[in-house]
Amino acid sequence: MERYNPEALLPPWLRELSTEKCGALPSDEERMRFAIGLARQNVLHGTGGPFGAAVFDCSTGRPVAVGVNLVVGSNCSHAHAEMVALAIAEQRLSSYTLNRPGFPRYELVTSSEPCAMCFGAIIWSGVSRLVCGARTADAEDAGFDEGAKPERWIAELEKREIEVLTALCRSEACEVLQLYLDKGGMLYNGQPRQ
Amino acid sequence: MERYNPEALLPPWLRELSTEKCGALPSDEERMRFAIGLARQNVLHGTGGPFGAAVFDCSTGRPVAVGVNLVVGSNCSHAHAEMVALAIAEQRLSSYTLNRPGFPRYELVTSSEPCAMCFGAIIWSGVSRLVCGARTADAEDAGFDEGAKPERWIAELEKREIEVLTALCRSEACEVLQLYLDKGGMLYNGQPRQ
Repeated sequence: MERYNPEALLPPWLRELSTEKCGALPSDEERMRFAIGLARQNVLHGTGGPFGAAVFDCSTGRPVAVGVNLVVGSNCSHAHAEMVALAIAEQRLSSYTLNRPGFPRYELVTSSEPCAMCFGAIIWSGVSRLVCGARTADAEDAGFDEGAKPERWIAELEKREIEVLTALCRSEACEVLQLYLDKGGMLYNGQPRQ
Repeated sequence: MERYNPEALLPPWLRELSTEKCGALPSDEERMRFAIGLARQNVLHGTGGPFGAAVFDCSTGRPVAVGVNLVVGSNCSHAHAEMVALAIAEQRLSSYTLNRPGFPRYELVTSSEPCAMCFGAIIWSGVSRLVCGARTADAEDAGFDEGAKPERWIAELEKREIEVLTALCRSEACEVLQLYLDKGGMLYNGQPRQ
């Protein structure tokens, strides 16, 4: 019987990136630049929206799984960078939660704050930490609809013991949003600019 | 190269259910009972949580795709019934959105109101209508954490032209939640009862 394999979502250029061979990225900035780099490569390869994410083992600073936005190419409205990275991490660790006795702490580093769906998915994933680049308003300014999150969404995550750091390397993350617009990228699920 | 196939998530008993052979279910109640039936079968087969969902073509009343909660068995925290049904519908229709010129209207019928993640996913899916059985409070009373949705989440969907009908066949949907508890079902992602 065919096995569920979210890695099949990844485009060829990203399948070639073996996270096992990636060295440790000790600082938040290095991890964020790695996620922003994925977003940039996704735009340059024309494989999806300007968003990248990775799950890191907090104890080693090494990436466990990567994701980019693959909504249009994969015919999957859920295939946001965060969802792809989390699904792959869970499959690789054979666990429906990344918060399990005996596991290290895991964190999700994403080039842009999560949309309404990914906000909820972060809760279920069991990550202990969320690090974001661009602000929700930055993605909205670029024309993306981010959906409706609870007004105090960061506090909601913190209430669930998920530490949140945002606006890290924000201008670099915003440059990728702009790169996408400059290349005439498609605003799937977007709202027309007013 | 391996293709992304969300149908691989489905347990054998559900793969055997061919939606192509399903007849039309003209009324909301019939569609809801179909979704509740999926939830019940999922509990009876021991393949996941007490939640079922299906995407229907509003013009014919026929199901296009089905889903049940498969979080634990598939090692995928996103594998909620709604997410599974939407992902399969999009793959079958080869479209990242169910709201496309030339498409009929599609609706999602779910045995329980969506959690925080599925709420966002419904927006991105392009469904025109959402029909729910059990209330969020019912799932919470059974011990499930539903995450934090915007306070006026139904209004948020309606603002995006998604019609919402809820508490349909609510007591039948609640019976399946109770059946799960009676069978000692696991409260993954649950919060301990106070």
